[in-house]
Amino acid sequence: MDQILPVSHSKMVQTRLVLPPDTNHLDTIFGGKVLAYIDEIAALCAMKHSNSVVVTASIDSVDFLASAKVGDALQLEANVTATGRSSMEVYVKVFADDMLQAKKVMTTESFLTMVAVDENGKPKVVPGILPETEEEQRLFETAPARKEHRRSRASLR
Amino acid sequence: MDQILPVSHSKMVQTRLVLPPDTNHLDTIFGGKVLAYIDEIAALCAMKHSNSVVVTASIDSVDFLASAKVGDALQLEANVTATGRSSMEVYVKVFADDMLQAKKVMTTESFLTMVAVDENGKPKVVPGILPETEEEQRLFETAPARKEHRRSRASLR
Amino acid sequence: MDQILPVSHSKMVQTRLVLPPDTNHLDTIFGGKVLAYIDEIAALCAMKHSNSVVVTASIDSVDFLASAKVGDALQLEANVTATGRSSMEVYVKVFADDMLQAKKVMTTESFLTMVAVDENGKPKVVPGILPETEEEQRLFETAPARKEHRRSRASLR
Amino acid sequence: MDQILPVSHSKMVQTRLVLPPDTNHLDTIFGGKVLAYIDEIAALCAMKHSNSVVVTASIDSVDFLASAKVGDALQLEANVTATGRSSMEVYVKVFADDMLQAKKVMTTESFLTMVAVDENGKPKVVPGILPETEEEQRLFETAPARKEHRRSRASLR
Amino acid sequence: MDQILPVSHSKMVQTRLVLPPDTNHLDTIFGGKVLAYIDEIAALCAMKHSNSVVVTASIDSVDFLASAKVGDALQLEANVTATGRSSMEVYVKVFADDMLQAKKVMTTESFLTMVAVDENGKPKVVPGILPETEEEQRLFETAPARKEHRRSRASLR
Amino acid sequence: MDQILPVSHSKMVQTRLVLPPDTNHLDTIFGGKVLAYIDEIAALCAMKHSNSVVVTASIDSVDFLASAKVGDALQLEANVTATGRSSMEVYVKVFADDMLQAKKVMTTESFLTMVAVDENGKPKVVPGILPETEEEQRLFETAPARKEHRRSRASLR
Ligand SMILES: CC(C)(COP(=O)(O)OP(=O)(O)OC[C@H]1O[C@@H](n2cnc3c(N)ncnc32)[C@H](O)[C@@H]1OP(=O)(O)O)[C@@H](O)C(=O)NCCC(=O)NCCS
Ligand SMILES: CC(C)(COP(=O)(O)OP(=O)(O)OC[C@H]1O[C@@H](n2cnc3c(N)ncnc32)[C@H](O)[C@@H]1OP(=O)(O)O)[C@@H](O)C(=O)NCCC(=O)NCCS
Ligand SMILES: CC(C)(COP(=O)(O)OP(=O)(O)OC[C@H]1O[C@@H](n2cnc3c(N)ncnc32)[C@H](O)[C@@H]1OP(=O)(O)O)[C@@H](O)C(=O)NCCC(=O)NCCS
Ligand SMILES: CC(C)(COP(=O)(O)OP(=O)(O)OC[C@H]1O[C@@H](n2cnc3c(N)ncnc32)[C@H](O)[C@@H]1OP(=O)(O)O)[C@@H](O)C(=O)NCCC(=O)NCCS
Repeated sequence: MDQILPVSHSKMVQTRLVLPPDTNHLDTIFGGKVLAYIDEIAALCAMKHSNSVVVTASIDSVDFLASAKVGDALQLEANVTATGRSSMEVYVKVFADDMLQAKKVMTTESFLTMVAVDENGKPKVVPGILPETEEEQRLFETAPARKEHRRSRASLR
Repeated sequence: MDQILPVSHSKMVQTRLVLPPDTNHLDTIFGGKVLAYIDEIAALCAMKHSNSVVVTASIDSVDFLASAKVGDALQLEANVTATGRSSMEVYVKVFADDMLQAKKVMTTESFLTMVAVDENGKPKVVPGILPETEEEQRLFETAPARKEHRRSRASLR
Repeated sequence: MDQILPVSHSKMVQTRLVLPPDTNHLDTIFGGKVLAYIDEIAALCAMKHSNSVVVTASIDSVDFLASAKVGDALQLEANVTATGRSSMEVYVKVFADDMLQAKKVMTTESFLTMVAVDENGKPKVVPGILPETEEEQRLFETAPARKEHRRSRASLR
Repeated sequence: MDQILPVSHSKMVQTRLVLPPDTNHLDTIFGGKVLAYIDEIAALCAMKHSNSVVVTASIDSVDFLASAKVGDALQLEANVTATGRSSMEVYVKVFADDMLQAKKVMTTESFLTMVAVDENGKPKVVPGILPETEEEQRLFETAPARKEHRRSRASLR
Repeated sequence: MDQILPVSHSKMVQTRLVLPPDTNHLDTIFGGKVLAYIDEIAALCAMKHSNSVVVTASIDSVDFLASAKVGDALQLEANVTATGRSSMEVYVKVFADDMLQAKKVMTTESFLTMVAVDENGKPKVVPGILPETEEEQRLFETAPARKEHRRSRASLR
Repeated sequence: MDQILPVSHSKMVQTRLVLPPDTNHLDTIFGGKVLAYIDEIAALCAMKHSNSVVVTASIDSVDFLASAKVGDALQLEANVTATGRSSMEVYVKVFADDMLQAKKVMTTESFLTMVAVDENGKPKVVPGILPETEEEQRLFETAPARKEHRRSRASLR
C-alpha cells in the first residue's frame, strides 16, 4: 500500500462527562479510567487511518499532572504522528474542563503504538502519514527517536 | 509516622474473567481495559499499605506482550516495592490464563506511582516498606534508579 | 447576562465505537443507546455554552434511517442553534462510520431543548448565541418555528 | 400471518431504581437514560408481540415534565397500540415514584415505531392487534392519524 | 405503625433482555446476574411496601433449574409474603422467555428477607401485610415455618 | 478422568473496591452485588479446577452479617471443597475491609454447586479434589451431609 493520508483525516476529539462511578472518595477520577479513555481514542484514530482492526502494542509512560472531578468534562484529542509498516504512533492529549468555572487544564498526554491486524490477528500494512501543521511536522520528525527509546527500554528488561 | 510495614501486608492478587464487552472484533481484550485493571489493583494495594485514599501520579511505559481473549482469566498481582514521603511505587504483573487449555502467559507488567492524599487532596506521609523475599529486595534496591529516570523524563518535556 | 457566544464555542464532536453490549441479535445498535448518546452530547454542548448544569426539557421526534453494527464508529456532532431565556435548542447529527469499508452514512438527526438550572433545579438565564456559518444562520432563523411547533404539540395533549 | 393477538398479551411493566451513575450534578436522572429505558421496554413489548427481533424505526417527540432523583423508582408501562405490515406502534408511559414519600408523578410518555426484522434485517410480517380496554381502543383508533403525521414530518426534511 | 397493606400494593414484575455481557462461553446467563436481578426486584418490592430504604438480610438457597440465553427475556415476579417488626419476607420467581420460540420455562425461585432501615441504618417498623389470593394466603401461612428454619440454620454454624 | 488436583491449585482471592453504583441510599452495598461477586469467584475457581466452562446449579442460603460501604474493599476467598461426577462444591467467604480504619469484618459466606459442562451444555466429568489443610479436610468430610441436605430440600418443593 503506497497510499499516504494526511494527519487531519484521522484526527479525533472526544468530550466525556466525569460521572460518580468513575471517581474515588475525593470525587476525583481514577487514573485507570483516564487510561481506558486514552486507549479508546487512540484505537479509533488508528482504525480510521488504517481502515482496519487495531491492537495496542504499547503506551509510553503517563504522568497525571492534574485531576478531574465529578461534573467536569474530560476532553481528549488524538492524532497519528508517524507510521511504520503495520504500526502507527498516536499522540493523545487530555484536558479537564470545569465547565461551571470555565477553567480548563491539561491533565496528561501520552504516545501509544497501535498495530493494524487482519482477521487472524496478523499485522498488516498501513498507509503512510502526511503531517500538515507545524506541530504535526515536529512530532513526525521526533518519532524515530521515541521509537529508538522504546526499543532500548525493551532490551533493558 | 515511623511505621514500617512488610510488602506481604498489602500484596494483592486478582483474577478477572474476560467478557465480550471488554474485547474488540477479534475477541481480544482492549489494552485500555487491562490498563484500568492495572490501575485498580495498584490503587487497592496502595490504599491497603497507607490506610488512605490514593491518586495515581504516574504509570511507567507498558508493553503488551500477549493478548487475552474472551473466556480467559486475567490474573493480576501487585505489591508495593518502595515508598517516598507520600508516594508508593507499585509493581503490577498481568497474566492471561486460558483455563480451558491450561495455558498461562505473561501479558504485561508495569510500575505505577501512587500518592496518599488527605481529604483535601494534599499528599500525606505513608508508612515505610520492608521487603522480605529476594525479588522484593531487588525491586526495593532498583527503585531509586527508576525514580531518577522518571524525574529526568519529566524534565525533558 | 447580556453575553453572546458564537456557536463554535460550544460545538461538540464525539466518536463512539459500537460494542457488543450495545447491540441486539443482529449485531445492530439499540435505538435507545443512540438516544442516550444524543442526549449526552447535547447536554455537554449546552453545559459548555451556559457554564451551568442543564436538564433535558424535550427531544423532537427521531427517525432512525440507517443502523450501525458492532465495530462501526458512531460519529456525533452537536451545536447550539438558538437560545431563549433559560433554554437552548441543540441540533445533533449522527453518522455510522464503517471504518473497515470506509463507508459513512447518516443514521439520524434531532433537535433537543436543554434548560440551564441553578443548584435548586430552577431555570437560570443563559448567554445568547451568535451563528457564524451559513448552516448555523439557517438553523438560527428556523428555530422560532420549531419552538412554536413544540408549543402547539404540547397544547394538543 | 393472519394471527391477531390482544394488547394484554405483550403489555410490559418495569420498575427501575434510579442509581448515582444515572444522574447529573443535581442528582436528577439524565434524559438520555430515560430514553434508553423507554426504547428497551418498547423493544421487549414488540418482541413479545411479534416473536421476532425488532429495530426502532422512530420515536415521537418526548417532553420531560418532571424529573426523577437518586433513590426514586422509575416505573414504565408499554403496550402495542396498532400494527402495520411489519411495524408496531408502541405507547410508553413513565412515572417517577418517590417511594420514601409515597409520591408518584408522570415524567413523560411517547410513541415509538418498532419494526420486526428477519435474520437479514429485512422487515417481516407481524400479527395484528386486538384492543380490549377503552384506552386501548382509543389509542388504536388514533394511530392512523399519528402515522400520517409521521409521514408528513418525514417528507418535510 | 398499625397500617396493613395488601400484597398487591407492592407486587413487582420485571422483564429483562439477556445481553452478551451477562453470559458465559455458551451464551447462557451467569447465575450471579440472575441473583443480582432477584435482589433488585426484592428490594424494590420491600421499598414500596415500607416506604423506606431496605437492606438484604438473607436469601434462601437458590436452585437454577433452567438457564436463559442471549436474546431471551428474563421475567421476574416478586411480592411480600409476610412481615415481622422491621423485616419483610419477599418471594421471587424467575422465568426465561424465549420470545422467538414463544417458549417460557421457570428458571428459579427464592425467598429473601429484607429489613427496612432509617437514615442511620437502624431497623424501623414496617406495615403489616394482607394476603388476598389463595397463593398469597398459603405463602403467608407457611412463612413462620420458613423463618424458624432460617433461625435453626443460623444456630448450626 | 482419574486425575486428582489439590485444593490449592484452584484457590482464588479477589479484592474489589466498593463504588457508588454498587450502593443504596445509605452508601451500603446491595446484597445482589455481593451475590454476583460470590458467583463470579466460584465460577473462576470451578473453571480453574475443571479446565472447563461451568454453570451454577445452586447456591446455599446466604446471611448478610455485616455490610460494606463506599470506599471499603470487599475481599473474597473461594476454594473447591468436594467434587462429584460433574459437580464441584465451592466455598466462598466475603470480608469487608475498611482500609482507612484498618478494620476488617466477615460479611458473609456460602456454598455453591458448580457443574462443568461441554460445548452443548451437557455435564462432563471433573477431576477429584485433594484437601491439604485441616480446614480443607473438615469441609471435604462435611460435604456429603450438605449434599444430602440440598437433595432433601429439593424434594420438599
Ligand atoms: C500526584 C499529585 C498529588 C502530586 O502533587 P504535587 O503537588 O506534585 O505534590 P508533591 O510535589 O508534594 O509530590 C508528592 C509526591 O508525588 C510524587 N510525584 C509527583 N508527581 C509525580 C509523577 N508524575 N510521577 C511520579 N511521582 C510523582 C512526588 O515525587 C512526591 O513523592 P514523595 O512525597 O514520596 O517525595 C498531583 O500531581 C495530582 O493531583 N495529580 C493528579 C492525580 C490524579 O488525579 N490522577 C488520576 C487521573 S487524572
Ligand atoms: C424543564 C423544566 C426545568 C422546565 O421548568 P418550568 O417550571 O416549566 O420552567 P419555565 O416555565 O420557566 O421554563 C423554562 C424554559 O424551559 C422551556 N421548556 C419548558 N418545558 C419545555 C418543553 N417540554 N419543551 C421545550 N422547552 C420547554 C420553556 O420554554 C422555558 O424556556 P425559556 O426560558 O428559554 O423561555 C422542568 O419541566 C423539568 O424539570 N423537567 C424535567 C427535566 C428532566 O429532569 N429531564 C430529564 C429526565 S426526566
Ligand atoms: C426501520 C427500517 C428497517 C425500515 O426499512 P425500510 O427499507 O424503510 O422498510 P419498509 O419501507 O418496508 O418499511 C417497513 C416498515 O417500517 C415503517 N417505517 C420505516 N421508516 C419509518 C419511520 N422513520 N418511522 C416510522 N415507521 C417507519 C414503514 O412504514 C413500514 O411499516 P409497515 O410494514 O407496517 O407498513 C430501516 O429504516 C432501518 O433499518 N433503520 C434503522 C433501524 C435501527 O437500527 N434503529 C436503531 C438505531 S440506529
Ligand atoms: C445444572 C444442570 C446442568 C444440571 O443438569 P441435569 O440435567 O440435572 O444433570 P445431572 O442430573 O446429570 O446433574 C449433573 C450434576 O449437577 C448436580 N445438580 C443438579 N441440580 C443441582 C442442584 N439444584 N443443586 C446442586 N447440584 C445439582 C447433580 O447432582 C449432578 O452432580 P454430579 O454429576 O456431581 O453427580 C442444569 O440443571 C442446568 O443447566 N441448570 C441451569 C444452570 C444455569 O444456567 N445457571 C445460571 C443461571 S440460570
